Amino acid sequence: MKDLYCAVDLGGTKINIGIMTKEGEVLDNIKIPTEVEKGPDNSINNIKKTIYELLERLNLTKNDLKGIGIGSPGPIDSEKGIIVESCNLKGWKNVKLVEQLSDEFEGINIKLQNDGNAAALGEYLFGFGKGCKNFIYITVSTGVGGGAIIDSKLQVGASSNAFEAGHMIINMNGRKCSCGNNGCFEAYASGTSIEKIASERIVNEESIISEISKGEKVKAEHVFESAKRGDKLALEIVENEGYYLGIGIFNIMAMYNPEKISIGGGVSNCLDMFYDKMMDTINSMSLKPSTKICKIEKAKRDDCGLIGAGALAFYNE
Amino acid sequence: MKDLYCAVDLGGTKINIGIMTKEGEVLDNIKIPTEVEKGPDNSINNIKKTIYELLERLNLTKNDLKGIGIGSPGPIDSEKGIIVESCNLKGWKNVKLVEQLSDEFEGINIKLQNDGNAAALGEYLFGFGKGCKNFIYITVSTGVGGGAIIDSKLQVGASSNAFEAGHMIINMNGRKCSCGNNGCFEAYASGTSIEKIASERIVNEESIISEISKGEKVKAEHVFESAKRGDKLALEIVENEGYYLGIGIFNIMAMYNPEKISIGGGVSNCLDMFYDKMMDTINSMSLKPSTKICKIEKAKRDDCGLIGAGALAFYNE
Repeated sequence: MKDLYCAVDLGGTKINIGIMTKEGEVLDNIKIPTEVEKGPDNSINNIKKTIYELLERLNLTKNDLKGIGIGSPGPIDSEKGIIVESCNLKGWKNVKLVEQLSDEFEGINIKLQNDGNAAALGEYLFGFGKGCKNFIYITVSTGVGGGAIIDSKLQVGASSNAFEAGHMIINMNGRKCSCGNNGCFEAYASGTSIEKIASERIVNEESIISEISKGEKVKAEHVFESAKRGDKLALEIVENEGYYLGIGIFNIMAMYNPEKISIGGGVSNCLDMFYDKMMDTINSMSLKPSTKICKIEKAKRDDCGLIGAGALAFYNE
Repeated sequence: MKDLYCAVDLGGTKINIGIMTKEGEVLDNIKIPTEVEKGPDNSINNIKKTIYELLERLNLTKNDLKGIGIGSPGPIDSEKGIIVESCNLKGWKNVKLVEQLSDEFEGINIKLQNDGNAAALGEYLFGFGKGCKNFIYITVSTGVGGGAIIDSKLQVGASSNAFEAGHMIINMNGRKCSCGNNGCFEAYASGTSIEKIASERIVNEESIISEISKGEKVKAEHVFESAKRGDKLALEIVENEGYYLGIGIFNIMAMYNPEKISIGGGVSNCLDMFYDKMMDTINSMSLKPSTKICKIEKAKRDDCGLIGAGALAFYNE
């Protein structure tokens, strides 16, 4: 039998748990609600139960698992296997996730890593990053995150918190970010920012966005839908998304000089609507030796958060 | 005898050439003018002559050299050993530096790297970065540059152009940079920017800066001198330097999560005048798990550009 690994992609809303091979094939997976408000013990118990359920469905026992890898919202401490604190896991503090799972899965190698880093690893090993040495994965959804592969190794940083790209300042004194700072990349380019910017502007500007959102809270998908129907304001917001992404990606190119960048997350589903503006922005800027060699594409693996988490257990950091 | 290496720190104005040990001790060095305008062949001949002069002074022959390491303004191509082009070496294009030196120093290992990366390696191996795994060196002088050590390895990037920190956008639509972009870190925090900002402001604001500069072109040192004498405008410009550096360094912390950062270059000689503002800026921002663990100090080795260049020849990239 092939070596099998358990992958846990822990998010603020749901937890995706799967059993996978070293080749990135997911044999089976189950999504369960995180139920953050019920506390970490409840969630960890549900993770354990779900792993057993998956093993049963695949006719396996826990001894068939060579390792367990977990991607979690940060900040985490990967060496100690602790979720330090996270605004996506409200109320959870210093959760000894690895220790608690080790009690159940004794003798099995268990790794914990920041979810952006894990996803970068997944897309690197099994997606667009395959075969290159310097690779960046960016996820654009509620926030902006990601991870970096440098010289074929996952960048984790001194305390597992490297590549907080969403909080890189691109416009000091600019828009307020949820982190409290001003002018973060995320405060301009995330799905949440598209929503906020649209909500602010439809108050005074003519647009079909509120009609599309049926007067409810505007979502990024409403803005994209309105743009598809030719709405002038929505088109401008989508164009600006390309510009903001271009600026942030330019910064990443300047710092990392990668061969490839792939973009995942919900907003990337509409990448073709702002890809040209993003590329025009980058191509109009300096540092040609870094920008010209780099290819940018939509992430190939939607499940890179899951397979990357699993890969933590066998990939030598 | 100890293993000996030749170090070449090639700059736009001068070339510093030395003979050093693996322990970072410079046995002897000579600075010669670059004479960029006379073309690369002239400079390369002068480098060769100076190496022989140093060897003679130390009673050595070229067979005593285990390797030669060169730091050069980028963009370079380290694999091919070529200086691709550089605004600091005007008119030089695709200079086959390693090949030309190899003709003279046959059989000796010769390495070429971007000067910021080389300096980072020097400060990492022999200065403030010693012993840590994730380290950043920033140089603040005419421009802003530097290099990164990630998990004990020098980050070079896909085409040897990683860590162009000076051209990271911190204020889109902001001040024009010499690279043509708007809002680069360098357009705010470099010595050149201090000079430009001061020159712009003394036109309309009261200040002793032009008195200190004797009506000549304002230099950064004039601004620092005026600030020491209590000049209100100069004090504000120096304070802003701390703020801008704080923003740029925050970005570097967000992306690299380093244990230590050291700051070199001419402007760092006045670091104590804006250190507090820089730290206040960083400490007032988010990402505490990344900012709290990181120590920032003035670079310990003034000659890190030289010893880092030499170290390229024995340090395993």
